[in-house]
Amino acid sequence: MSKIKYPNRIINLRNYISENKLDGIIISNEENRFYFSGLKSSAGFLFITMDNLYLFTDFRYTELASSQAPGWDIKKITSRFGWLPEIIKKSKVSNVGFEAEFTTVNTLNLLEETINNSDVKVSLVPTTDIAMTLRAIKDEEEITLLRKAIEIGDKAFEYTEKNIEIGMTEKEVAWIFEKSVREQNAESISFDTIVASGKNAARPHHATGESKIEANSTIIIDCGAKYNGYCSDLTRTIVLDDANEKIKNIYDIVHMAQLAAIDLVKVGMTGEECDSIARKIISEAGYGDFFGHSLGHGIGLNVHENPNVGPKSKFVIKNNMPFTVEPGIYLQGWGGVRIEDIVIIIDNKTQVISKAKKINL
Amino acid sequence: MSKIKYPNRIINLRNYISENKLDGIIISNEENRFYFSGLKSSAGFLFITMDNLYLFTDFRYTELASSQAPGWDIKKITSRFGWLPEIIKKSKVSNVGFEAEFTTVNTLNLLEETINNSDVKVSLVPTTDIAMTLRAIKDEEEITLLRKAIEIGDKAFEYTEKNIEIGMTEKEVAWIFEKSVREQNAESISFDTIVASGKNAARPHHATGESKIEANSTIIIDCGAKYNGYCSDLTRTIVLDDANEKIKNIYDIVHMAQLAAIDLVKVGMTGEECDSIARKIISEAGYGDFFGHSLGHGIGLNVHENPNVGPKSKFVIKNNMPFTVEPGIYLQGWGGVRIEDIVIIIDNKTQVISKAKKINL
Repeated sequence: MSKIKYPNRIINLRNYISENKLDGIIISNEENRFYFSGLKSSAGFLFITMDNLYLFTDFRYTELASSQAPGWDIKKITSRFGWLPEIIKKSKVSNVGFEAEFTTVNTLNLLEETINNSDVKVSLVPTTDIAMTLRAIKDEEEITLLRKAIEIGDKAFEYTEKNIEIGMTEKEVAWIFEKSVREQNAESISFDTIVASGKNAARPHHATGESKIEANSTIIIDCGAKYNGYCSDLTRTIVLDDANEKIKNIYDIVHMAQLAAIDLVKVGMTGEECDSIARKIISEAGYGDFFGHSLGHGIGLNVHENPNVGPKSKFVIKNNMPFTVEPGIYLQGWGGVRIEDIVIIIDNKTQVISKAKKINL
Repeated sequence: MSKIKYPNRIINLRNYISENKLDGIIISNEENRFYFSGLKSSAGFLFITMDNLYLFTDFRYTELASSQAPGWDIKKITSRFGWLPEIIKKSKVSNVGFEAEFTTVNTLNLLEETINNSDVKVSLVPTTDIAMTLRAIKDEEEITLLRKAIEIGDKAFEYTEKNIEIGMTEKEVAWIFEKSVREQNAESISFDTIVASGKNAARPHHATGESKIEANSTIIIDCGAKYNGYCSDLTRTIVLDDANEKIKNIYDIVHMAQLAAIDLVKVGMTGEECDSIARKIISEAGYGDFFGHSLGHGIGLNVHENPNVGPKSKFVIKNNMPFTVEPGIYLQGWGGVRIEDIVIIIDNKTQVISKAKKINL
């Protein structure tokens, strides 16, 4: 049998299985299946016990599975759970976990029916956030891919900034970014690019549209690339032509808040503690009510994943856990400023991975 | 109160609610929320009773909701289900449906907990396939948007066919298609473009990669555009330079099977009956074992939706129900042929909406 791609990820998962008195687990979420097995596929299940690694998928992916998921026992399925009773019997398992945050009510019903209509006995045990907790800490291969995704996103942003012009539509600007991402051989953008000019910049999640890029007001560009599954996420606020004093003042507050947070985040802090570093500075400047989102979020195979770096988060920051630092101030009828980088703490030292230049106002 | 955008869709949904002895329903699926309300948003819930239309969403979308979902009672939420007990009390409902095919086990638990910790009493009733059944039949606005999406996809395919060259990678060809879609102002491609050349064409769902486009073999291009939410889906098989007799022969069989199916599908047939028209021709030509997928599928806000037009489908075809007709033959180690158009039956007459030209071999 060939060697599996990610032995440490399986060891971590098996530790969870045994600590939680399970005998096996069904992994159904698409990114989680990829994370443990290495196979990218839109459908299928992993069934992982202390002794075996089964990968169930349909005719579209069985051939690909042999090359992308070496070391897994690959089974071709023709029905959703027809394969389950036999494998349970063979594996002699009695407590099997499933991903309750990703499994629908109908899917669980089908799972239970399949078991009840067979001659096997097994308890299906709901689990939550197992893979998502493991995935918060990235291994070396993941950090390399993430750095590459960020590099592509940075370059595409800088190319966009060079080519943006007053009077273009927001959509046209977003398309410049996307083309650059794709021409660097990334698989796609990692989320719908946000380009918000003028008053639109007051909406943190503005839907990029036909509005024209304006001079002398803030333009928020929030953008990311996806490379080999890993997502980047970058925000810059720029101004075409002159920035007035109000823009400069608000930009400086957000920028100071961001630099302070980057400087002071430490291993062992909660997401809430990290968030409060930036929030305190913005509040003391009088804009506390206008920073209406979290300071940041983890990033990896999903754009938003653990750790949550927001006001109520008890998630503890550890080494090798990349996350965004993106404070903002948004004033309705005026515009907004947000500045976002991805940071990671390695060996207790904070690195800023994002390199896209920031403006000098 | 302003007029709602889609009164007929709400009438259909309320018919379902009353026929099934419900008093209201929670709609959570993203496309379904858009279908009923008109608001595009990544998060939120609709709560629909016989008397009221509530749209719950967070701060990101409340402003947009007022313009995109006129006539709905828009409520800003700050927690997932904190809003529910009050609205249940106010609406005096006792049986509330939820979408069991889209609601996760954890979400249902949270729903139930929220109810149990409040002073309201209500039964949460699992429902399946309500919106998905209604959505199979398209109204005039939807058919117009679908025609536009198909027109964009057709043009982008024809542009791609003009620019494809031997030696390009499959990915490069897919990118030509995607650029053309986007430059026609469509929001995106509707699914990952499949470009499969040479032996890769033997895989119906080949993952477009770095393989080079070959001469004298079949090249399958399966591609679609998304316009205002609606998806197109088109497959053409082309050959660069000369096609040998085997290619011509297999192409003709698939093409005949497709034309026969388009000619003979009728209102009142099941998906299975439609499928069997093409399958019979391919089987009689000796290739029955090499047509390993369904004849087609419905299309609309999702690329794949009802009706299922495959071997086991009892779904009955009706007027105004667009679906794909896409027979194929796939031979391992050789290649494959698939030809796909979207058809719709209106007033009992079948129209082929797709217009992209087919090759003459």
